Amino acid sequence: MELLIVKDKRIDYDGSAIQSHWAYRNFGILGDSIVIFRGKCDVKVEEMIDIEDLRQSKEIKSHDMVHYIIEVFDLVNTLFASTLQKLFIARLCEVLGEYGVKTQRKGDDIYVNGKKLSISIATVSPVSVKMHIGINVEARGIPEGVDAIGLKELGVTDVDEFMEKTGKALVEEFNKVKRDSLKVRWAQ
Amino acid sequence: MELLIVKDKRIDYDGSAIQSHWAYRNFGILGDSIVIFRGKCDVKVEEMIDIEDLRQSKEIKSHDMVHYIIEVFDLVNTLFASTLQKLFIARLCEVLGEYGVKTQRKGDDIYVNGKKLSISIATVSPVSVKMHIGINVEARGIPEGVDAIGLKELGVTDVDEFMEKTGKALVEEFNKVKRDSLKVRWAQ
Amino acid sequence: MELLIVKDKRIDYDGSAIQSHWAYRNFGILGDSIVIFRGKCDVKVEEMIDIEDLRQSKEIKSHDMVHYIIEVFDLVNTLFASTLQKLFIARLCEVLGEYGVKTQRKGDDIYVNGKKLSISIATVSPVSVKMHIGINVEARGIPEGVDAIGLKELGVTDVDEFMEKTGKALVEEFNKVKRDSLKVRWAQ
Amino acid sequence: MELLIVKDKRIDYDGSAIQSHWAYRNFGILGDSIVIFRGKCDVKVEEMIDIEDLRQSKEIKSHDMVHYIIEVFDLVNTLFASTLQKLFIARLCEVLGEYGVKTQRKGDDIYVNGKKLSISIATVSPVSVKMHIGINVEARGIPEGVDAIGLKELGVTDVDEFMEKTGKALVEEFNKVKRDSLKVRWAQ
Amino acid sequence: MELLIVKDKRIDYDGSAIQSHWAYRNFGILGDSIVIFRGKCDVKVEEMIDIEDLRQSKEIKSHDMVHYIIEVFDLVNTLFASTLQKLFIARLCEVLGEYGVKTQRKGDDIYVNGKKLSISIATVSPVSVKMHIGINVEARGIPEGVDAIGLKELGVTDVDEFMEKTGKALVEEFNKVKRDSLKVRWAQ
Amino acid sequence: MELLIVKDKRIDYDGSAIQSHWAYRNFGILGDSIVIFRGKCDVKVEEMIDIEDLRQSKEIKSHDMVHYIIEVFDLVNTLFASTLQKLFIARLCEVLGEYGVKTQRKGDDIYVNGKKLSISIATVSPVSVKMHIGINVEARGIPEGVDAIGLKELGVTDVDEFMEKTGKALVEEFNKVKRDSLKVRWAQ
Repeated sequence: MELLIVKDKRIDYDGSAIQSHWAYRNFGILGDSIVIFRGKCDVKVEEMIDIEDLRQSKEIKSHDMVHYIIEVFDLVNTLFASTLQKLFIARLCEVLGEYGVKTQRKGDDIYVNGKKLSISIATVSPVSVKMHIGINVEARGIPEGVDAIGLKELGVTDVDEFMEKTGKALVEEFNKVKRDSLKVRWAQ
Repeated sequence: MELLIVKDKRIDYDGSAIQSHWAYRNFGILGDSIVIFRGKCDVKVEEMIDIEDLRQSKEIKSHDMVHYIIEVFDLVNTLFASTLQKLFIARLCEVLGEYGVKTQRKGDDIYVNGKKLSISIATVSPVSVKMHIGINVEARGIPEGVDAIGLKELGVTDVDEFMEKTGKALVEEFNKVKRDSLKVRWAQ
Repeated sequence: MELLIVKDKRIDYDGSAIQSHWAYRNFGILGDSIVIFRGKCDVKVEEMIDIEDLRQSKEIKSHDMVHYIIEVFDLVNTLFASTLQKLFIARLCEVLGEYGVKTQRKGDDIYVNGKKLSISIATVSPVSVKMHIGINVEARGIPEGVDAIGLKELGVTDVDEFMEKTGKALVEEFNKVKRDSLKVRWAQ
Repeated sequence: MELLIVKDKRIDYDGSAIQSHWAYRNFGILGDSIVIFRGKCDVKVEEMIDIEDLRQSKEIKSHDMVHYIIEVFDLVNTLFASTLQKLFIARLCEVLGEYGVKTQRKGDDIYVNGKKLSISIATVSPVSVKMHIGINVEARGIPEGVDAIGLKELGVTDVDEFMEKTGKALVEEFNKVKRDSLKVRWAQ
Repeated sequence: MELLIVKDKRIDYDGSAIQSHWAYRNFGILGDSIVIFRGKCDVKVEEMIDIEDLRQSKEIKSHDMVHYIIEVFDLVNTLFASTLQKLFIARLCEVLGEYGVKTQRKGDDIYVNGKKLSISIATVSPVSVKMHIGINVEARGIPEGVDAIGLKELGVTDVDEFMEKTGKALVEEFNKVKRDSLKVRWAQ
Repeated sequence: MELLIVKDKRIDYDGSAIQSHWAYRNFGILGDSIVIFRGKCDVKVEEMIDIEDLRQSKEIKSHDMVHYIIEVFDLVNTLFASTLQKLFIARLCEVLGEYGVKTQRKGDDIYVNGKKLSISIATVSPVSVKMHIGINVEARGIPEGVDAIGLKELGVTDVDEFMEKTGKALVEEFNKVKRDSLKVRWAQ
C-alpha cells in the first residue's frame, strides 16, 4: 500500500475524492493507497455516500481537517470495506493514545470526552473499496448541534507530524493484515 | 451474530474447533457466531493453521485460557478474515482498557508491558471465515522462550464477567460493521 | 428479510424503484427486504432493465398492479438474481393455487388460461440483487397485443389479504433458503 | 446444461456422488450437468452433507428411488445452491401437477397428502454447486418414523418417462434462468 | 462464445462499444461474444478507459482499423480481464506468424519492426469483462508521435479473411480455456 | 510476484507441489510466486489434477524437466487459472522464439515440429490459483506413445540460463497484467 502525504498545499474535500481511481487520476498512484491532505470539508449532497445522512439532511462540514482517502483493489465488498474502516479508526485511536489522548471509539466515530473528533465513510466502487476519514484540526465550521473537538484542542499541534505518524501506522496495519492473510493454510 | 458463552464446563482447545460448522455441530448454532469457553490450549501439529509456526516448529500451549471461536459465513476471503481478526483484537484491547489494563497491540497479538497475553489465528474454510483467539487466564504452561502474562496477573479475576463483557463487545462490533455496510450507496 | 406492506396509500411504479437502496431511502429499511405496494405501472424507457424489451420497444404498463420490490445484499450476481426470481414466481403460483387459481409458470411469467397475469425483472446493482414483480389487479391499461388477466377476474378480490399472504410466503421462502445454506458441510 | 439419463442399469446412491466432478469422472460429461439414474439409497454417515441430519443421527434410506445429481460450475456459493435447489424442487412439483398429482412443497421437501415423497441436499465443493434430489419410486426401506410415499402409489408407473420429463424440465428451467441472467442491464 | 463478423458495412469506433451488453443491444447476441468489424477509430475523451491515456491527454485515432469487441460474463474482475486480453493479443501474434509476419508483443501492444500495429483496452462493467482490440489496416490518421504500421504494409491484404481467421482463433482459444477450467479437480 | 530459481540442487516433481502454500512451506516465499527447479517428473496418481488424464490412466513422466510451480492468491477461480496458464505458455513460446525455436502452441501444450515439449496443469486450491509447467530437458523417460522433444535437442543447452530467462519473462508478464488491471476505469 502506497502512502502519499500532501504537505505543500491545502486540498478541500467536497466528497468527489470518494470516486474510484482518484489517487491515480490526481497523483499517478497505482493500486492500494492512502493519500493524506489537509483542508476544508464541505460534502456536496450529490457526493454523500451515507444514505442515513441523506435521509436526515445532515450537513458534513468542518473548517480544517486532516483527510485520509483510502483505496483498496484486492476485494470489492461492502462488508470488507466496513471492517477495514473500523480497524483503521481503531488504529488511529491507538496512535492518539501514544499522544496521550484518551479516545472513545464508537464504530467509525472517534470521541474525546464525549466530543466528536472525526467523520468517516466506507463503501465500494465497481472496482475497489473506498474510504474517507476526516479528523478535525480545529472544531470550527462544524454543523450546528454537533459537539465537536479538534486536534489542536487536544494538544496535537504539529499537524504535519500527525499526518505522517498516522499515515505510516495505517499503511503498516494494512500491510500486516495482508501479509497474515497469505501465511495461513485453509481449514476443513 | 449469535453469542454463546460456555460457563458450566471447561473445554480444551486442540485446534480442531477451527473447522467449519464447529458451532453448529457442537451447539446447534446456525450462521455467524462467537462461542466463548475456558480451558487448556494445546494445538496439535496437524491442526496448526499458521504455516509460519509450522515452519518454526512452534508449540502453541497454555494451561488456562479464555477461547473465542468465531465463524462468519457472509464472505469467504482470507484478507477479510485477517482484517476482521485485527479489528476484534483491537476491540478486546479497548475492553481491557476499560478494566484499566494498558495494552499494546501488534497486529493480532496483545502485549502488556512487553509480555504476551494472547494468541490468534484467522483463515477460511471453503464456506466461511474462521478465527480463534485465546487469552491467557494465567501465564502457566506457556512454551519456553515466550514471555507471557495472564488476566489474573492483570487484576482481571472475574473471568466469567470478562467472557461476557468481551463477548458482547465483539458481537456489537460485528453487528455495527454489518449494519454500516448496508447503509452506504456505491461510489462511481 | 424484512417485509413492508404499504396499505395506506397507492404508489405508482415507473421503474426507478429498481435502483439500489430504494427501500432504505424511502422507508428506512436496512438490508434484505421486500416492499409490497399497489399502484399503476408505467415503466419509463430509461428505467427499463430488460434489454430484450428495449430492443423490441415494448411498453410495460398496467392500470392497477400489486408490486413487489425485492433487494438482497448477500450475493451480487445476475445468475443468482435470475434463480431467486424464478423461485419467488414459483412460490407465488403456489399461493395462487391455495386460492384455487390454476396457473402456468413460464420462467418468470405467470399465466392463467393462457392470459398473462404478471411481469417481472431481476438484475444486480453494484451492491445488491434487485427484483420487481408486478401482478395485475385488473387487466386494464395493458399494452395492446398482450392478452392479460388480473386478480379480480380470478376471484381474488381482497387485495390487501393477497399482499399479506404472498409477502409472508416470499419472506418465509427466502429465510428457509438462507437457513438451509448455513447447515450443510462442503463437499470434496 | 447437459442431461444424462441412465436407463440401462441401476445405480445405488451412497452419497459419494455429491463430490465434485462426479459426472465427468464417471460419464465424461464436462460442465453443468444433470445425471438421472435409479437405484437404492443408503447414505453413508461420512458422506452426509446435512449437519442437522448428522446431529440427529438420521438415516437416509429408500429401496428404490429416482436420483438427480446436479452440478453447476458458474457460481460457487451455498446461498445460490440452496436457491437453485428450491427452484428445482418447485419445478418437479409442477411436473407432478401435470401428472395430476397434487403436491405440497416445504422448502426442499415434496409431500403428497402429508407423506414425504423426496429427499434433497444442496451444497458447494471448492469448484462447484452440487445437489442431490431423490424421489421414492416405492415407499419401501424408508427409515422408521418417516411417513413416506412413492411415485407408484401416485399412479406414476412409467418411471423412465418420468425421468425423461423431469430431466428435460429441469434443464430447460436452468437454461431459461441462465439466459435471462444475460439479457438484463445492471441497475444504478 | 459467439462470433459475429460484420462484413457488409463499416462501423466506426468511438469508444461507446465498450459498454456492457453492446453486442446484445446492437446485434441480439446473448452471452460471451466477439464482434469484429472494420472502420475508423476516434475515441471520445468521455469514453476513454485507460486513465494513463487520460492523464497524458493522448489521442486514440486511426483511419482504418479492424475492431474486436469482446464481452465475457463468466467472471467480473479486472485482473482476469487483463489476463484474457494479453492471451488474446498473444494469439493474434501467433496468427500473424502464420501470415509470415514477425511480431513483438509488449503486454497488450503488438509491434512489427518497432512500429505499433494495435491498440487495446480491457476492463469490467458491473456485469461483465469488456475488451477492445484495434488493428491498423493502414497506418493513416494515427496520432502524431506514434510510429505505426498497418496490415496492408505487412502484406495482409485480404482483410475479410484476416477478420475470419483471427475471429475463429480467438473463439477457439476462449473455448479451450473454458473447457480446461472444467476438467481439473481442485488441489488441497 | 516473487521469483525463486533453484540451481544448487535437483528437485523431482511428484505432483505434491501443486498444493497450496508449497512455496511458503518449503522456501518461505509469501504471496504470488514462481519457483523454478530441475528434476525428474513422475506424477503419482493421487496427485493428478487433470481428470481427463485420470480417466485415460495416462502416465505423466519425464527423466529431466524444468519445472515451474506458480501460485497466485489474488483471485481464486478456475477460469482465471486456465487463462493465466495459456498466457504463460504463450509467453514461454515467445521466449523460445528468441532462442530461434519455432513452436506451435495448442492451448497449454507446446509442440516443436509436431513433438511435445511440455506438460502443464492449472487449477485452484481453496485459497489460490496453482499451476505446474514442465518442459523436457531431454526427451527421455516419456510415456510410450508420446512423441516428445527436449530443450537439448532444440539447441537450448544452457538450462540455467533458460530457467532465468523464462522466469524473468513470466514474472514481468504477470506484473504487467496486474499493473494494467489497476489503471483502467470501469465501463458502464
